[in-house]
Amino acid sequence: MLPINTFKTIIENTPLVSIDLVVYNQKNEALLGKRNNRPAQGYWFVPGGRILKDESIAVAFRRLTLNELGAE
Amino acid sequence: MLPINTFKTIIENTPLVSIDLVVYNQKNEALLGKRNNRPAQGYWFVPGGRILKDESIAVAFRRLTLNELGAE
Repeated sequence: MLPINTFKTIIENTPLVSIDLVVYNQKNEALLGKRNNRPAQGYWFVPGGRILKDESIAVAFRRLTLNELGAE
Repeated sequence: MLPINTFKTIIENTPLVSIDLVVYNQKNEALLGKRNNRPAQGYWFVPGGRILKDESIAVAFRRLTLNELGAE
């Protein structure tokens, strides 16, 4: 995880590269979570996260599905 | 343009989002330049540049083709 000040510098100055995971069940319902933390507290969101420096999309996808969904 | 220290923080900590322009002439030859500056001094490259914070891909594409190629 990046130090908070480094993360703020990135957020303020450059696009964030991230993956959003849109997961459907067999009823065609998408998985949503509700944010507990600021910013966007109380808003619904899909799981996902940012792609790290020197991380490929494939590796990021595997890391995020494992960490956010507990599945590969 | 970002302050050099901000740019360094970004380069070191997160993926850079950029557009590479691959321009062909009627002979199917691609336009290359040779870098005068570090890093990658002396290496061939295609024109392009990074996408700025809150800039859409379409706007970045127009800005970079105009600034790097003198054309839209």
